Amino acid sequence: MFSSNTYATRRDRLIALVKSGLILIPGNTDSPMNYRANIYRFRQDSTFLYFFGLDEPGLTGVIDADSGESMLFGEDPTMEDTIWIGSFEPLQQKAERCGISNTGSPEKLNEKVAQAVAEGRIIHILPPYRAEQQMQIAALIGSEPKASQVLINACVTLRSVKEACELAELEKAMEVAYLIHTTAMHMAKPGVYESEIAGTMEGLTLKYGAGISFPIILSKNGQILHNHHHHNLLAENDLVVVDAGFESYRHYATDNTRTIPVGGRFTQKQKEIYDIVLAANNAVLENAKPGVLFRDMHFLAATVITDGLKQLGLMKGNTAEAVASGAHALFFPHGLGHMLGLDVHDMENYGETFVGYNHEVKRSEQFGTAYLRMARRLEPGFVVTNEPGIYFIPALIDQWQAAGTNSDFINFDKLTDYRSFGGVRLEDTLEITSHGARVMGKRIPITVEEVEREMA
Amino acid sequence: MFSSNTYATRRDRLIALVKSGLILIPGNTDSPMNYRANIYRFRQDSTFLYFFGLDEPGLTGVIDADSGESMLFGEDPTMEDTIWIGSFEPLQQKAERCGISNTGSPEKLNEKVAQAVAEGRIIHILPPYRAEQQMQIAALIGSEPKASQVLINACVTLRSVKEACELAELEKAMEVAYLIHTTAMHMAKPGVYESEIAGTMEGLTLKYGAGISFPIILSKNGQILHNHHHHNLLAENDLVVVDAGFESYRHYATDNTRTIPVGGRFTQKQKEIYDIVLAANNAVLENAKPGVLFRDMHFLAATVITDGLKQLGLMKGNTAEAVASGAHALFFPHGLGHMLGLDVHDMENYGETFVGYNHEVKRSEQFGTAYLRMARRLEPGFVVTNEPGIYFIPALIDQWQAAGTNSDFINFDKLTDYRSFGGVRLEDTLEITSHGARVMGKRIPITVEEVEREMA
Repeated sequence: MFSSNTYATRRDRLIALVKSGLILIPGNTDSPMNYRANIYRFRQDSTFLYFFGLDEPGLTGVIDADSGESMLFGEDPTMEDTIWIGSFEPLQQKAERCGISNTGSPEKLNEKVAQAVAEGRIIHILPPYRAEQQMQIAALIGSEPKASQVLINACVTLRSVKEACELAELEKAMEVAYLIHTTAMHMAKPGVYESEIAGTMEGLTLKYGAGISFPIILSKNGQILHNHHHHNLLAENDLVVVDAGFESYRHYATDNTRTIPVGGRFTQKQKEIYDIVLAANNAVLENAKPGVLFRDMHFLAATVITDGLKQLGLMKGNTAEAVASGAHALFFPHGLGHMLGLDVHDMENYGETFVGYNHEVKRSEQFGTAYLRMARRLEPGFVVTNEPGIYFIPALIDQWQAAGTNSDFINFDKLTDYRSFGGVRLEDTLEITSHGARVMGKRIPITVEEVEREMA
Repeated sequence: MFSSNTYATRRDRLIALVKSGLILIPGNTDSPMNYRANIYRFRQDSTFLYFFGLDEPGLTGVIDADSGESMLFGEDPTMEDTIWIGSFEPLQQKAERCGISNTGSPEKLNEKVAQAVAEGRIIHILPPYRAEQQMQIAALIGSEPKASQVLINACVTLRSVKEACELAELEKAMEVAYLIHTTAMHMAKPGVYESEIAGTMEGLTLKYGAGISFPIILSKNGQILHNHHHHNLLAENDLVVVDAGFESYRHYATDNTRTIPVGGRFTQKQKEIYDIVLAANNAVLENAKPGVLFRDMHFLAATVITDGLKQLGLMKGNTAEAVASGAHALFFPHGLGHMLGLDVHDMENYGETFVGYNHEVKRSEQFGTAYLRMARRLEPGFVVTNEPGIYFIPALIDQWQAAGTNSDFINFDKLTDYRSFGGVRLEDTLEITSHGARVMGKRIPITVEEVEREMA
């Protein structure tokens, strides 16, 4: 259960890791669409949510690692707020909800930070990812923001291992994930526009929570990895990649991908590729466990994919050599997965490398593996996505073929028949347990049989 | 019909009004939600859409009012863009779509603007409303952005009078407006959460276009004018204010409000208030025409509301004096309406006062009327909203009663029975024709009988 104590305890653990200095955690402000007052749906900063849990714009949290004290800064609501936006709750009351008694106005925040700067204290901040944040922090500290590595590392340490209340929240969110993905399966019929399915799915995420956790990827052009255009009309036998996530009211994310055949039946050719991707996904599910490098899980998936494509005659040569050479990346050009939590790519705002890599595991520079967001050793309580895929990307095939890239491992001639295939991606979320990994939530139909049954 | 010529003609007309200097119109960039790569649905800048029509991030338009030349600046897509986001179209091709042949990289834009600054030429810019814009423009011109009044006035002149293609686009968009509002009527039953209706409506806007034109207001607490919280469970006889708009793929907005009784039947008390608001709406519809001050339409609505509330015994005294004194604003504390077009509050980013007021009509400082966004004389081709309302806002009633504000015109004692009433707002969009005004689109059910029939 989340309570005011949840946040107080997290702040205490943060102080224990950061040890000294003033930790400045600005909540987000509203983001304008086409003019200042016409705003996007408010998205609170995830770090602020983690340590303060308050879901309103214009608040800033300060944690004094020396005195151990937490403070909340913001404005009290005015009569105008009451009339226009129905905001009544005094700042003091908000603060109490996250176990804080010490509050102040934005002017007091200015004074507090200015005093700390004048005293030469360390001001710990995280890398800003919105221009407003950058300007606010620069104004507060009187210089260009420079992120604190100590604070980044402490936040990654805490947030990587999910608490019981977080695991329960994620598990619960998966119910809506199941709903939206099976809804897509029911709707994917010839004559339907992609936008009709994507719109319905997003509507459901708003019906039951805070909306989507990232822009929906739903396309018959599944070979475009992050395709947010939904203008195509679907026809029989189109293969649609649906990569979509729900965000709960507490802003925990889901992230699943299914690949579904328009009309409800896979062709033989589609099944062959699909089953390779499913085998890769299942191999990771069976082998992921505490102590294992997630990078090795990525290579395991690449190995299963390479073996499968060899059987179809699309790849050739020694599998281990092909994977070492990065030949699989023509078909599987992205990473196996990433952490999931308050962000769909959890903590990516801290810097992807600080989250997924460490002293033991350095990021590869090889095409494909370089995109791997998460590589380090798994621990119980980690939540990661498992999302292998196979794609046929004409522009990339042409580039490799022209350059002779990995031609020892790829039968370029055989690829001609696959240029309009699209892609297949299958993504579940794994909770790393004490001894292995489990798929979070009720597993969304994933075998050929299950998907065809759901679509019947 | 929109064509490349549409944009070329608009730019020529802009040049004719601005006369000299370099006009800098940056398109929008992506807005991050919780980390840089996790973005909100892209919303192009409306001025950029009006003069260039291109709906992609990272472009900047420059119009040289001296040479008459237009230029488009941006990046060409890379192989990485092709793989990840499916972006293929070269900049040159984008430019041709809006009738431009002259293109350049962001570096060329820097050089172009730096040269103009060095030559002492006027750089016309609009007021930035996003922090990213402000930073981009400051970097380009080498100083803090200062908006050009000449450019603001020229844009207001052009965009206030809608072209035939714009009117057709707005009229078409009203079909989805009709759909979402009647959907709300069908769904508003006891035991349903507000979020279920709002989510379904937003889903429909995504199914058929670019989504919502502003955050949906849907609440049984209709007395909160811009209430974006949808957490209430609806019960029989709750009165729900539904203020929601659709945005077409070309980003033209709709904006309508209906107030609907949960369960499908208004109570006698609700009908009495509802019919006053409807009478105010209809009075404006019948009287709005070219040459009339929209401010007078606001006062007409206020007059009908005051008369109606007098009949119910909630107000008293001379109607004209009550309206002059602003007594109606206890119940109708906002303005009658605003322009509508590419923005739901059209051109609000230029500064509301520059759009709705001019040398002839100055903004009032009186509570209520001060919120009127649009006041100036109507012209054929204007598109404005007509949205009178009556609300019972306990905090405001208490404030006025305690201070004795307008006590000559208000029967505070009678208001006790209305403290939990909520509010009623009824909003249509009017096109100002050569001789009058018409409701755009098929009018959404609005009389008590029509609404009850739709909900039956």
